[in-house]
Amino acid sequence: MENSIGKLFTITSFGESHGRCIGIVIDGCPAGLPVSEEDIQKEVDKRKPTSPIATTRAEEEKVEVLSGILDGRTTGAPVCLLIWNTDIDSTEYERIKSLPRPGHADYTAFVKYGGFNDYRGGGRFSGRITATFVMAGAVAKKLLSRIGVEVLAYTVEIGGVKAATKGLDEIRARVETNPLKCADTAAAEEMLKVVEQAKKEGDSIGGIIEGIALNMPVGLGEPVFDTLEGDLSKALFAIPAVKGVEFGSGFSAARKRGSENNDPFSIKDGKIVTTTNNAGGILGGISNGMPIVVRVAVKPTSSIAIKQDTVDIREMKNTTIEVKGRHDACIVPRAVPAVEAMTAVTLCDFAIRAGLIPEVLKSE
Amino acid sequence: MENSIGKLFTITSFGESHGRCIGIVIDGCPAGLPVSEEDIQKEVDKRKPTSPIATTRAEEEKVEVLSGILDGRTTGAPVCLLIWNTDIDSTEYERIKSLPRPGHADYTAFVKYGGFNDYRGGGRFSGRITATFVMAGAVAKKLLSRIGVEVLAYTVEIGGVKAATKGLDEIRARVETNPLKCADTAAAEEMLKVVEQAKKEGDSIGGIIEGIALNMPVGLGEPVFDTLEGDLSKALFAIPAVKGVEFGSGFSAARKRGSENNDPFSIKDGKIVTTTNNAGGILGGISNGMPIVVRVAVKPTSSIAIKQDTVDIREMKNTTIEVKGRHDACIVPRAVPAVEAMTAVTLCDFAIRAGLIPEVLKSE
Amino acid sequence: MENSIGKLFTITSFGESHGRCIGIVIDGCPAGLPVSEEDIQKEVDKRKPTSPIATTRAEEEKVEVLSGILDGRTTGAPVCLLIWNTDIDSTEYERIKSLPRPGHADYTAFVKYGGFNDYRGGGRFSGRITATFVMAGAVAKKLLSRIGVEVLAYTVEIGGVKAATKGLDEIRARVETNPLKCADTAAAEEMLKVVEQAKKEGDSIGGIIEGIALNMPVGLGEPVFDTLEGDLSKALFAIPAVKGVEFGSGFSAARKRGSENNDPFSIKDGKIVTTTNNAGGILGGISNGMPIVVRVAVKPTSSIAIKQDTVDIREMKNTTIEVKGRHDACIVPRAVPAVEAMTAVTLCDFAIRAGLIPEVLKSE
Amino acid sequence: MENSIGKLFTITSFGESHGRCIGIVIDGCPAGLPVSEEDIQKEVDKRKPTSPIATTRAEEEKVEVLSGILDGRTTGAPVCLLIWNTDIDSTEYERIKSLPRPGHADYTAFVKYGGFNDYRGGGRFSGRITATFVMAGAVAKKLLSRIGVEVLAYTVEIGGVKAATKGLDEIRARVETNPLKCADTAAAEEMLKVVEQAKKEGDSIGGIIEGIALNMPVGLGEPVFDTLEGDLSKALFAIPAVKGVEFGSGFSAARKRGSENNDPFSIKDGKIVTTTNNAGGILGGISNGMPIVVRVAVKPTSSIAIKQDTVDIREMKNTTIEVKGRHDACIVPRAVPAVEAMTAVTLCDFAIRAGLIPEVLKSE
Repeated sequence: MENSIGKLFTITSFGESHGRCIGIVIDGCPAGLPVSEEDIQKEVDKRKPTSPIATTRAEEEKVEVLSGILDGRTTGAPVCLLIWNTDIDSTEYERIKSLPRPGHADYTAFVKYGGFNDYRGGGRFSGRITATFVMAGAVAKKLLSRIGVEVLAYTVEIGGVKAATKGLDEIRARVETNPLKCADTAAAEEMLKVVEQAKKEGDSIGGIIEGIALNMPVGLGEPVFDTLEGDLSKALFAIPAVKGVEFGSGFSAARKRGSENNDPFSIKDGKIVTTTNNAGGILGGISNGMPIVVRVAVKPTSSIAIKQDTVDIREMKNTTIEVKGRHDACIVPRAVPAVEAMTAVTLCDFAIRAGLIPEVLKSE
Repeated sequence: MENSIGKLFTITSFGESHGRCIGIVIDGCPAGLPVSEEDIQKEVDKRKPTSPIATTRAEEEKVEVLSGILDGRTTGAPVCLLIWNTDIDSTEYERIKSLPRPGHADYTAFVKYGGFNDYRGGGRFSGRITATFVMAGAVAKKLLSRIGVEVLAYTVEIGGVKAATKGLDEIRARVETNPLKCADTAAAEEMLKVVEQAKKEGDSIGGIIEGIALNMPVGLGEPVFDTLEGDLSKALFAIPAVKGVEFGSGFSAARKRGSENNDPFSIKDGKIVTTTNNAGGILGGISNGMPIVVRVAVKPTSSIAIKQDTVDIREMKNTTIEVKGRHDACIVPRAVPAVEAMTAVTLCDFAIRAGLIPEVLKSE
Repeated sequence: MENSIGKLFTITSFGESHGRCIGIVIDGCPAGLPVSEEDIQKEVDKRKPTSPIATTRAEEEKVEVLSGILDGRTTGAPVCLLIWNTDIDSTEYERIKSLPRPGHADYTAFVKYGGFNDYRGGGRFSGRITATFVMAGAVAKKLLSRIGVEVLAYTVEIGGVKAATKGLDEIRARVETNPLKCADTAAAEEMLKVVEQAKKEGDSIGGIIEGIALNMPVGLGEPVFDTLEGDLSKALFAIPAVKGVEFGSGFSAARKRGSENNDPFSIKDGKIVTTTNNAGGILGGISNGMPIVVRVAVKPTSSIAIKQDTVDIREMKNTTIEVKGRHDACIVPRAVPAVEAMTAVTLCDFAIRAGLIPEVLKSE
Repeated sequence: MENSIGKLFTITSFGESHGRCIGIVIDGCPAGLPVSEEDIQKEVDKRKPTSPIATTRAEEEKVEVLSGILDGRTTGAPVCLLIWNTDIDSTEYERIKSLPRPGHADYTAFVKYGGFNDYRGGGRFSGRITATFVMAGAVAKKLLSRIGVEVLAYTVEIGGVKAATKGLDEIRARVETNPLKCADTAAAEEMLKVVEQAKKEGDSIGGIIEGIALNMPVGLGEPVFDTLEGDLSKALFAIPAVKGVEFGSGFSAARKRGSENNDPFSIKDGKIVTTTNNAGGILGGISNGMPIVVRVAVKPTSSIAIKQDTVDIREMKNTTIEVKGRHDACIVPRAVPAVEAMTAVTLCDFAIRAGLIPEVLKSE
């Protein structure tokens, strides 16, 4: 296992879905940053299940600060943030302990950890672990705001329904107003229908999330290996169900001519900009000052009520499984805060590496 | 800059396109592996420009072993591999030193390194740097073959022309027989037309490369952060022009139902397999024994002959640029060996971390 | 801050002396290891203050497992171990908040963290943080015992009183029987007098601790930089008050001839051994199969009752300080378990890197 | 093997004593630093063997820049520095290939690398490898000079002969004037006699080197694990023959009272200083602005002409060995530049981590 990421701003995740708690240690956070439990709670609350698409597990997810903050400010010491697990019912998992659920990590974890892994509720592989990412992201976003960088994520496609491109004001205003976390509220209604239909059939559906970072300084990224794309994609693939990551024009660039895809440079208000942003704000692995634009593909929720073929890993025979319990028919909206968080955490690390955020933050 | 990647099998890249040389240090290579300059040369030669689509720079790219190999076997010490640069003509770059080429790293590198970066031929950001990846990949592939793992990469789409899915035998037999490195030779002819058309118009075109790893053991990958997807994508984004990475059904999973996308488990010849492979061989960030399948989106070559808008970064004024010199109208085929190499390097690191490749290799 | 150490077996420390808790996350622990809270508690209890030399703070230091252990065995997921802080009285620290105590980190922490650091009880710089090392060490020792390696530490000198060299049986039998943690009980009595004398005078005294590792396999250590000496010394310098580390004949080697200091090789019971062990079990940074022998110099406790010169860092003027409160006149015995722990943690990491401890441990 | 060290300023060493070359890749060096081959050559030349105490191998050690420097300034890309090996005679090593030399890494390397290691001239374990450290140190020293930090190393004891403490001016003026690299020229003459006597008897002798860093900023070091002491000691133990490292009063602190060893704070010229420096400039693992003072114990050269007991590792029988060839009777003076270099490399990494040296250096 390797549960730490980040070079100077390093987060270490621990805990299991049905264990005592889930938590994160943030190391390398500059001293003097005002942070309260409420600040972090606010971000974690964005993960709350929203009827009708999501699980009804009454997860409280109440954030506690265990270390690293004194008198409302970070001290320079590691910040440990914790959520105690409550409302746990592991009965169902006991029943299917030997039957790996298709699409889940049950089988690979069973082999890798010799059957000793915590299988209850997916253990370490549960989407619930992303709540620890969101806690770290809350701190990272506060740090990035010190240099003016804003990170946003939102749903742009679910079950084939695509959202129209929206302006920043609309994104900021509408994402949290609908259960799909989509800036295009009309599309959100269509998406909802698709999700409800899938749910009704005991099935699930996937989608695409876009993350953006605004007011980026030029020069973040450490090629040739620690590129912005490379480190962002690595961080984003830590979110369960993510199976693809693209920047700017991404896969569509594969069908474009250079003359279409190249972003021309121009001077605007005394600053060098590009007049298009097919690069997604990144050239040569380094930020070019335009908005970072990343999209992640989220597969349909693996847990479905429909009967599926599987095997009994202890008796080594074919069998079938029906996954009961509380599951989201579409995990996409609840992954949105995780995309925002992991983007923020990664950019924050690069900003600190580039010396843009100092070791000590002066009072606001 | 951060020019090392890999935790136990670590490669460190150095050199510039128009400097004295390009090279790679491979650290953590087990002792006793038979490696010759010819073995590595063979892989590097796959990068050779192939008429009519590629640059005509007569790059010899002759591999030299500087350290770490004695009497034809690795010693356990770092293996340094070098290619001296020859046939260098930097005149053109002198001319456009102040004019960042759209799509290239010229502007971001200029800002990040304060104008001190080696701008000649793209310096560190040149596709030529991937020759160092290929050298490391040659060693990684030899190590992986010790545990039966085979890594292959090939072109699956160029300029919208898609190759048909081909069997392993065809892939192995045909990829090196056409300048597109495509297993579907009929599609390759279509692709060639698209590339030649773009070239004739002074333009360029992108495409998609697929990489696969066969005979994978179950259990490679170290979640939650060092997932197979995460580390593979990070490694692949180090290849210039890559703007998207997806695994298995990837972005198409976003439009699928769970019942379609989940891979059912089944027992075959006493082994647990999945009957489909939408997961691309990875569940929960860990290999499940099925083939790893990764696809990367390669943008169209940034260097085009068509006049483009840019700025003069020293005089801060708008201007235009026509990029002359020798450029590939389509970089995709030459990125294929790099995709193969970075996939191999990453899997090799995971295999060593999992204890599958020992510190000392017995004689073959 | 950088609060993680270890490449594959990685520990991340958090918490403060007078905060809510102190804790450690152990990442990379193989699955299947039987570990109970009692196992860890037993090691932590060795840190208990022992009258008459130590502080009377009634630190309970009760170990809690937060994650990574299920049904008494490690799961392969990160193991988080926690001790809640109790019996905290920070009044004294409030009084001297602006007066850096000589020998302590008060001044450097104040500058580095801009005055935001948790100054109460030394915060992150308290000896109490070593309880988190000891928790990790308890797990590391259990892992090492799987390959037969035993790690021991004990006091060999305090205030100039040197212990006689003792055999392994005596070390195992006597170290925990006296408050000095010394295998030579006669010397321990002399040491006690020295400590009591210092205490009576409001002063403190230092000493030397020796750590050994027995039944070492040949081949641990990853030169040229990750040598056994290098990584062990780095780990040991994390213990507050350690100001020197030496291996085998150490500093006395500086005065020896090669013919005296070289350890001759010989065959004994079909195995290659050295007939002396001036190398402390390490040649070229790699274990040679003989016992690892390391000694650390521990400075006298910085907190003393005697009046000392210091400055007021807020008013920038000279002043004096008398440090009140509960302090050990000699910190050496309480650092002994930390030396044992950090030695075990480091060797465990090397053993895993060398592939000697597998990812999954079979039942005992 | 692990041949890289440093977090942001990272050096990667490669090459063997009797291979084609030895080299170092410096990654993370800020752009714009003026560096010439002559600058580096000057430092490497300090390693030159000096009659009568040293080997007579006519090692030219001519430095070549392979990458990362353009028009006399660093570019931000990795700097690869190389020395081609010349004057190699491996005959003697062929003779004793199966006979591990006592005190050397022959035996441990043989086991660890399965006999595939380059045994000629000690291979990777040769003192010659420290020439690569010195090349990196030359760059680090130039970077440190940008923030006013000066690093010096010199011999303080050989064969029991101790040098008197000397002022900075004397150290700067005299160290390079005598073959012992000792600031106390009278003591140097005594040391020389001791060395010559050992040599005459076919034996060798050890000593102690002191390193200091002046004009240190307050706040370097990243506790609890990346302490200044921890990272410096790790770096210094990479130098062959180093068996002990201590800071400030070091091992003598073990015999001191707290009232003696604590350094009182005082205000001097408006700055906070300590009136003594038993801490060696480090409190809590963080620099306190006083000079860093580190001492390393160097064991006597392992290669001696006197007959020693050893074993034949291939035939597994006891035998004896007489090590012929060119060896230093005392390696201490040639380790002095390595101590200076590794101290500089480590401090440089910390300075960059603390944001004190920017990514781009303005012209001098």
